[in-house]
Amino acid sequence: METVIKIACQDEKGLVHKITGILYDKLLNVTRTNEFVDEAFNQFFMRISYVGNCEINALQAELFAVLPQNAQVEIIPPALKRVVLLVTKEHHCLGDLLIRSQFQDLPFRIEAVIGNHTTLAGLCDQFQMPFHLISADGLSREAHEKLVEAQIDTYAPDYIVLAKYMRILTPAFSAKYLGRMINIHHSFLPAFVGAKPYQQAFDRGVKIIGATAHFVTDDLDEGPIICQDVVAVNHTFSAKEMAKAGKDVEKIVLANALKMVFEDRVFMHQNKTIIFD
Amino acid sequence: METVIKIACQDEKGLVHKITGILYDKLLNVTRTNEFVDEAFNQFFMRISYVGNCEINALQAELFAVLPQNAQVEIIPPALKRVVLLVTKEHHCLGDLLIRSQFQDLPFRIEAVIGNHTTLAGLCDQFQMPFHLISADGLSREAHEKLVEAQIDTYAPDYIVLAKYMRILTPAFSAKYLGRMINIHHSFLPAFVGAKPYQQAFDRGVKIIGATAHFVTDDLDEGPIICQDVVAVNHTFSAKEMAKAGKDVEKIVLANALKMVFEDRVFMHQNKTIIFD
Amino acid sequence: METVIKIACQDEKGLVHKITGILYDKLLNVTRTNEFVDEAFNQFFMRISYVGNCEINALQAELFAVLPQNAQVEIIPPALKRVVLLVTKEHHCLGDLLIRSQFQDLPFRIEAVIGNHTTLAGLCDQFQMPFHLISADGLSREAHEKLVEAQIDTYAPDYIVLAKYMRILTPAFSAKYLGRMINIHHSFLPAFVGAKPYQQAFDRGVKIIGATAHFVTDDLDEGPIICQDVVAVNHTFSAKEMAKAGKDVEKIVLANALKMVFEDRVFMHQNKTIIFD
Amino acid sequence: METVIKIACQDEKGLVHKITGILYDKLLNVTRTNEFVDEAFNQFFMRISYVGNCEINALQAELFAVLPQNAQVEIIPPALKRVVLLVTKEHHCLGDLLIRSQFQDLPFRIEAVIGNHTTLAGLCDQFQMPFHLISADGLSREAHEKLVEAQIDTYAPDYIVLAKYMRILTPAFSAKYLGRMINIHHSFLPAFVGAKPYQQAFDRGVKIIGATAHFVTDDLDEGPIICQDVVAVNHTFSAKEMAKAGKDVEKIVLANALKMVFEDRVFMHQNKTIIFD
Repeated sequence: METVIKIACQDEKGLVHKITGILYDKLLNVTRTNEFVDEAFNQFFMRISYVGNCEINALQAELFAVLPQNAQVEIIPPALKRVVLLVTKEHHCLGDLLIRSQFQDLPFRIEAVIGNHTTLAGLCDQFQMPFHLISADGLSREAHEKLVEAQIDTYAPDYIVLAKYMRILTPAFSAKYLGRMINIHHSFLPAFVGAKPYQQAFDRGVKIIGATAHFVTDDLDEGPIICQDVVAVNHTFSAKEMAKAGKDVEKIVLANALKMVFEDRVFMHQNKTIIFD
Repeated sequence: METVIKIACQDEKGLVHKITGILYDKLLNVTRTNEFVDEAFNQFFMRISYVGNCEINALQAELFAVLPQNAQVEIIPPALKRVVLLVTKEHHCLGDLLIRSQFQDLPFRIEAVIGNHTTLAGLCDQFQMPFHLISADGLSREAHEKLVEAQIDTYAPDYIVLAKYMRILTPAFSAKYLGRMINIHHSFLPAFVGAKPYQQAFDRGVKIIGATAHFVTDDLDEGPIICQDVVAVNHTFSAKEMAKAGKDVEKIVLANALKMVFEDRVFMHQNKTIIFD
Repeated sequence: METVIKIACQDEKGLVHKITGILYDKLLNVTRTNEFVDEAFNQFFMRISYVGNCEINALQAELFAVLPQNAQVEIIPPALKRVVLLVTKEHHCLGDLLIRSQFQDLPFRIEAVIGNHTTLAGLCDQFQMPFHLISADGLSREAHEKLVEAQIDTYAPDYIVLAKYMRILTPAFSAKYLGRMINIHHSFLPAFVGAKPYQQAFDRGVKIIGATAHFVTDDLDEGPIICQDVVAVNHTFSAKEMAKAGKDVEKIVLANALKMVFEDRVFMHQNKTIIFD
Repeated sequence: METVIKIACQDEKGLVHKITGILYDKLLNVTRTNEFVDEAFNQFFMRISYVGNCEINALQAELFAVLPQNAQVEIIPPALKRVVLLVTKEHHCLGDLLIRSQFQDLPFRIEAVIGNHTTLAGLCDQFQMPFHLISADGLSREAHEKLVEAQIDTYAPDYIVLAKYMRILTPAFSAKYLGRMINIHHSFLPAFVGAKPYQQAFDRGVKIIGATAHFVTDDLDEGPIICQDVVAVNHTFSAKEMAKAGKDVEKIVLANALKMVFEDRVFMHQNKTIIFD
């Protein structure tokens, strides 16, 4: 299995040469390198995957030594990502991810599912997956989130996935998990932000509907987009049939986004993502 | 070649039976029939194509006799649609349509092109296509449109196609050609309405861009959608490269929409379209 | 819920008029009608959905009375299709369909799963779905099929779905379930027929891979195609990664095909399908 | 404008470090680097784009000095690719490319068009594009190709594009322009190789048709694939309508492939392509 190095820093000449020099000296077997420079922000991004043993703190220190100030360097040993899912009532993304987790179709392991309704408890049981009901009834948004947050943190997950979690989040909650929380939105953002996108799509008479997986930021439906896809519809589709057709896009888009993120191929920068092959 | 009957009326039982009875009595060779009922509006739509000779006024009268009040019945003999294009400076849709017109790739013939800049006059000359420059300089929107309208009407076209015509239209102008004027919008509506959609798409960091062909109504970018398609982009695309990638989608989406409309397969209803195979 | 009438017969003038006349006399509330004529074979196909009560044998008799000889008329009352799945070792289609069956995402109910290996027994158990192991070890193809056939027939299913069943079938087996047995093939047929299509695709260096759902006939991988879709790949994909990317297309294509079939929208004719909206 | 360096050689540790070191010493402003290792062949591929002046022969020599034996190093100054098109009777790809050449939608300039029929001479005239008729009537394949070859070579083009050139080529002809000759095939290879692919697709009843742009090798329809795309069809499409729908895919796929090739982002290796963003 491969270790991944993710570097993000201000751009300057010679960065690739200096970085690869360190790996060369250590005789690491580099399996892939990708670089990108966001010229608008003069920002440099590099992903390196390698096979071989190497003292990670030492490597990180050597990298920092040749990089500009405030560089970000992550060195990520091979391991399944540990994930907590948040859900409400819709089963299609949860079911898809439970199967992928059980059969390791993605490099992740679902640790637990948290729901604000009991609807999906049974499905989790079928997969012997811990399901925590945290109802929002009678609670302020903040109070409810505190309970959810506490439950999440007992698992110390690498990522939190909102698998059709139909609650609006507070900025504080979004900020706490910034870059580690992924949502699937049931529209082709930025079309149809907010509620009932399929009804909106039906009312507008669109010929294609879509789904968008994005990192969650404090700006509702405005986080950095990771993956999008669409499916054709026509005048014979009711709003309900559009929603049904959309569910398949949602679950595949979410799974594709998670694959890229869990393979450490995604950089979040400003309100965008850089995603390497 | 086929004659097409388009019927739109309030729905009631037995319509298909009554309509097809009239065709059967006339021994017309019906090559295809399509029907659809919009239940929300209790509205019935039917398209019939037939081969054979038949006195059209008589046929229309017989159809009206069996249809509910206020039924719309169009009987459209086989003929190339006569079209006037409105353009500004971008060549990709115009070039594509000039070639399709010259080689009859679509059942239409471009009668003339009207531009508010001279940029595309040369391209029209290459196709011996009349190009009318109607500059908007120093004119009010209304005054300019009056000139455009007058020029269009000298050709009495079946359809007006806005092939990247970058002017906002007055409600009066849109209303005059309602159902006969088609626009290509350079985004996946309703995402990125208005100006500079590719810059908007770039700023938003989307992973897919699109184009939308729609009938023009007095509500800017809100007319009934005929056709949409998308193309994948990624973080390496500049706004300019997105626009370039989008141009190919625009010209194909516009051509596909025109094909459906010129084959008399499209019904405009409320703010939507019903499109038969 | 709706009843569906499926009619296939030699084409002649007035069929739609005569058929709809019978429905009109019975005051049935017709919700949709679709017709198509395959001119190469002078074959007429019609689907009618209606709401309302009506003695089915009488209706069928009246229809036969106005139709040409050898007409096929099916009248299908609303009911979930009862399905038996055949599987081998791959879980992705099975898992997807088990969830769809449990939550009725499709108008079907899986009665049982038959596998020639034990691999997927556990997954079936999680859904309290009967799993019958029928190993082919030491058996002739015919002998094994006889056992499978016997097991299938205890459920008298409407349809048999080969959800990655990796056995070649005898003509006799295919013939017995003709028009009722659907297979998902892991390539964009007719590309890469036969074994290891992803390895073939990798070796060929294709940029898109796909999947095909088709009715099973005695001609391997040559049955009438119901649904196909594709996904883009590139030079960084190994054969294994192509296979992984393909699995998502397979399961969605199969589900889409089953939706169309279970909604009684698909006609099988010669080696093709006619599929109505 | 950017200069592009393309390097292909046997893989070994430290290549990226050594190569980027040379660029760093020269203080070149590197705008993008991409690398890929084909592990099956232990082959290394790198593309570097830079802005800045630098003596190319010296740079090439320095690169060879640090690379393994038999390395291929191309240094390509910014310039429009000079292209000769070969055509027969179909206008859609030619028309699309003539417009792209005139408006520089792609980084290329068409020098001339060679046709084995007169059909497209007029279209070339409209673009003041030299058209050379080289009829094959009464000539052996070899004799005809000698004439075509002679005509091509008077232009010493960078690339030869077969824009629906419906002649089978001799191995000698293909070999002469290996890596510089691109063909658009009117099917989703490897489906429907050979003649009349749309008739084949119609007869097979496929639900998607496609097109493939590939480098020409001496193995008909088997050259390295550069780009593919598809479009959905259904039972209402005749073979002729499939062909019509396919033409749009063909011209866009060809244009997309040429864009990648003319931007020097494509490596041909064995029977595959490596294509960098």
